[in-house]
Amino acid sequence: MEQTEISKIGEFGLIDRITAGIEHVNASTVKGVGDDAAELSYPDTEVLVSSDLLLEGVHFDLTYVPLKHLGYKAAVVNFSDICAMNGTPRQITVSLGISKRFTVEHIEALYAGIRLACEIYGVDLVGGDTTASRQGLVISITCIGDAPKGKVVYRDGAKDTDLICVSGDLGSAYMGLQLLEREKIASAGSKEFIPKFEGKEYLVERQLKPEARKDIVRELADAGIQPTSMMDISDGLSSELLHICKASHCGCRIYEDRIPIDYQTAVMAEELGMNLVTAALNGGEDYELLFTVPLHAHDEITKLKGIKVIGHITKEDLGCAMITRDGAEMPLRAQGFNHMSEE
Amino acid sequence: MEQTEISKIGEFGLIDRITAGIEHVNASTVKGVGDDAAELSYPDTEVLVSSDLLLEGVHFDLTYVPLKHLGYKAAVVNFSDICAMNGTPRQITVSLGISKRFTVEHIEALYAGIRLACEIYGVDLVGGDTTASRQGLVISITCIGDAPKGKVVYRDGAKDTDLICVSGDLGSAYMGLQLLEREKIASAGSKEFIPKFEGKEYLVERQLKPEARKDIVRELADAGIQPTSMMDISDGLSSELLHICKASHCGCRIYEDRIPIDYQTAVMAEELGMNLVTAALNGGEDYELLFTVPLHAHDEITKLKGIKVIGHITKEDLGCAMITRDGAEMPLRAQGFNHMSEE
Repeated sequence: MEQTEISKIGEFGLIDRITAGIEHVNASTVKGVGDDAAELSYPDTEVLVSSDLLLEGVHFDLTYVPLKHLGYKAAVVNFSDICAMNGTPRQITVSLGISKRFTVEHIEALYAGIRLACEIYGVDLVGGDTTASRQGLVISITCIGDAPKGKVVYRDGAKDTDLICVSGDLGSAYMGLQLLEREKIASAGSKEFIPKFEGKEYLVERQLKPEARKDIVRELADAGIQPTSMMDISDGLSSELLHICKASHCGCRIYEDRIPIDYQTAVMAEELGMNLVTAALNGGEDYELLFTVPLHAHDEITKLKGIKVIGHITKEDLGCAMITRDGAEMPLRAQGFNHMSEE
Repeated sequence: MEQTEISKIGEFGLIDRITAGIEHVNASTVKGVGDDAAELSYPDTEVLVSSDLLLEGVHFDLTYVPLKHLGYKAAVVNFSDICAMNGTPRQITVSLGISKRFTVEHIEALYAGIRLACEIYGVDLVGGDTTASRQGLVISITCIGDAPKGKVVYRDGAKDTDLICVSGDLGSAYMGLQLLEREKIASAGSKEFIPKFEGKEYLVERQLKPEARKDIVRELADAGIQPTSMMDISDGLSSELLHICKASHCGCRIYEDRIPIDYQTAVMAEELGMNLVTAALNGGEDYELLFTVPLHAHDEITKLKGIKVIGHITKEDLGCAMITRDGAEMPLRAQGFNHMSEE
């Protein structure tokens, strides 16, 4: 494909190209791209705002992440933060820092992914900033969403005896990353190399194209269940559960045999000789929802599809632990992704 | 001063340090830092959202910009975008990418500037993201603000015969940059070097510590004047005025002898042998407000302090030009900062 240097069309030319034909689907979007700020209107709901910064070489590796997938994922992980407040994502602003090795076509591919995510999730792209970067690609996204008044769910509302629930399955995105890293090493930089993903497509998809669980937020609302606390699982189940327990001043017990794990995740862990439960507890980027509901919601919650009760909240002095298959208590530890800690 | 490596306290430790003691002053801030998203409430006003990305080596040079000033400026330029919509800034989220050469104390200094700006402007710091960076410092700020319904001002509302107004003076931030660059070269990297800023303090301050013209937004509201179009001057008067005229499908005439220029700016231009008017037209980062008002507001607007009428809007086919002191017509050209164009 022919490539166009960005300097040929300049910043405004690039913005024109990537924002062409943008339409809005949300009533809350009054004015989008093209002025000093976007204008929104939220007369009847609470407004939720979340920001994420993704840096090349830290959060993504373009040797195996296609730009369109990267755009999709960058948008979706922000939608996920809004869902984690029991909200619905409505608008995003996208700021990009672009180094000289990227062409107009590259940025169009990235935007194609962002716009596809917006289309699928019903989110409006309303603004941002585009600038040169000295080193690599910088993506900063802010997502704005809403929730009915009184329905926003925080981290600090979990109570003793509440049930701990997760959506989907865990550890698959992490195993997808291991698979991609393995194939990257095997390819040794050759462009001829054909990576072996057969039978593991789900893992690759979970890593490259995660989804935000907007459907779960709706499902809970439809069932009349108001969670007492909620987070999305971006840094691993252990780490997020510890956040909820710390904020809520409580402890927890989860059960190893209840943690939802996909078959492909198990096969991959076996192949790599990794501990499957460790991957499910500490592997990041699943973007599933972790939440607590009152004990009396037990019958209702177990009827819902794609949600699993994995344990319960306890008093604070009992600490946070997993009950293993053989009945032992293993304290939960945060071993999630922490780009800044010593390792 | 003793320096602490960030890896010693980790991401969460750093976040605890820099967000300690944050208080909110706006009724629209329901919940700030500490959850997946901030929660805001805007039942009666329009919501304005603007994002900016600042990259080391592109937008700032830490050899002469102290981190506290950088933090202050990064916040203020975002407030300015909200003011440019005739709005009031209320909240910001701050995302940082931090390379290994920065210590906890560095980031605290940066945040001290951000928090000082928030305090002065009555803005609440409600969230963000903190991550490692491979190369240098990355600052991404999103500002949320509001304006009464029907009072938001866009770029596209200027009409034939409207008066063109600017606040403050122009070109001083650009001259401040020239001065800092000159002293940086003169210092040749020596730490003993004492830069010569005497009699030019205003220029340095305009570059290192710009202000958002929230006061002008209030002044106009108090006087009952609703501008027909507005922008903040970040890329230079010429460039911004061309944006307004393009969006509003009109032309303009401004008068060289009416462009507000500070005495220090004039002295510095003389010293450097630079054209003073070019600096005022094309020098960026003044963050003054450029706006248009209906002709009938003439008497009211000329009474207001710190605002100058510099020309008027014309029909589109007359184009955009400046009338020089000798009566010649000079077409306006966008020569503002464009990090992405060839030069």
